[in-house]
Amino acid sequence: MDKSGQQDKVCVIPARKGVAARVRKGQIVTVINTHGSQVVDTWAFCANDVTEFMSMEHSRGAMLKLNPKVGDTLRSNRRRPMLTVVEDTSGGVHDTLIAACDRYRYEQLGHAGHHDNCTDNLAAALSVLGLAPPETPSPLNLFMNIPVGEQGSISFEAPVSEPGSHVSLLAEMDIVVAFSACPQDLVPVNGAACVPTDAHYRIDDGAPRI
Amino acid sequence: MDKSGQQDKVCVIPARKGVAARVRKGQIVTVINTHGSQVVDTWAFCANDVTEFMSMEHSRGAMLKLNPKVGDTLRSNRRRPMLTVVEDTSGGVHDTLIAACDRYRYEQLGHAGHHDNCTDNLAAALSVLGLAPPETPSPLNLFMNIPVGEQGSISFEAPVSEPGSHVSLLAEMDIVVAFSACPQDLVPVNGAACVPTDAHYRIDDGAPRI
Repeated sequence: MDKSGQQDKVCVIPARKGVAARVRKGQIVTVINTHGSQVVDTWAFCANDVTEFMSMEHSRGAMLKLNPKVGDTLRSNRRRPMLTVVEDTSGGVHDTLIAACDRYRYEQLGHAGHHDNCTDNLAAALSVLGLAPPETPSPLNLFMNIPVGEQGSISFEAPVSEPGSHVSLLAEMDIVVAFSACPQDLVPVNGAACVPTDAHYRIDDGAPRI
Repeated sequence: MDKSGQQDKVCVIPARKGVAARVRKGQIVTVINTHGSQVVDTWAFCANDVTEFMSMEHSRGAMLKLNPKVGDTLRSNRRRPMLTVVEDTSGGVHDTLIAACDRYRYEQLGHAGHHDNCTDNLAAALSVLGLAPPETPSPLNLFMNIPVGEQGSISFEAPVSEPGSHVSLLAEMDIVVAFSACPQDLVPVNGAACVPTDAHYRIDDGAPRI
């Protein structure tokens, strides 16, 4: 535990739900795929102006790759560095291509009535901090396995990460980070069993310690 | 010319600038790469509610591919069909991965002072119709050549389209379409000469006639 006693504890990202937290520049956010097959939609917003946020379409052009690897920096919609991948024990399979799920996604999949979804989870998570997302940015989908095939074909596959594996992200500015443990249970993006699970995160002042 | 005398004329997308037009459901928008090497950033907004707009991150998941081919439908951020590719003589190399250029892009490339950019062009084009974009959606970058290599690497290359080649898009709902003839002249996305040029578009009631 660090001096404050607040920052380096492990916190839950409840299955099917979202959570947000404030992170200071220089701190490291570690996202743990506790059960190995849970996709965690991840967003970052500038702490003092949520109209600046992590943008996949700006990040790809700066990284010159589809998905971030250790050493790569995710950028904002104003092209400023927001999060740098400093450690990844998950196999490095993530996604920047696919939108957050939403009520329309589940309607089209034939679900009747309410279904938890990452878009609403983002809004709910930020509201706890007294914030509202200016839009739903395309998320960094940690652990999500969307292979790109020949001719640019893509498919939705189960994660390849192992239970307890993690990704650590260095905050390049003061941010609000938000996570959603994706509630998708109709398509096997959260594993073949289609059962969303808890994931966890921690915020450390120093180097990742997991 | 059709009965109205208004709809099927060829209109300019001026080099480095943007333009927008209203398109009714069932009409066909044809975008012509007049000089062959001009990237045309393209957006679509629902005519009666601009908070619904064409979304690359929602479209990729529905198309199951990175870039649309003839027969593929681009979808909105509410996952409704907006535009279907009905003809493409350009070689089919387009991009859905890269953000519209903006003032920050040119600042980072070392340009001092004002530089035309696709983000401002979108806002200016919509303002002529009395509209404002609720955000800058990631555009459909017609004719833009961003090849995806092994391990998901990407690069910025010159277009492969021929002068006069075109893409025709069927409107699946009443929309406002917006174009920007990308003013990028520091990176060869608009051809090796780095000289942005005019492009053209037409709106037809029937089948494309070019």
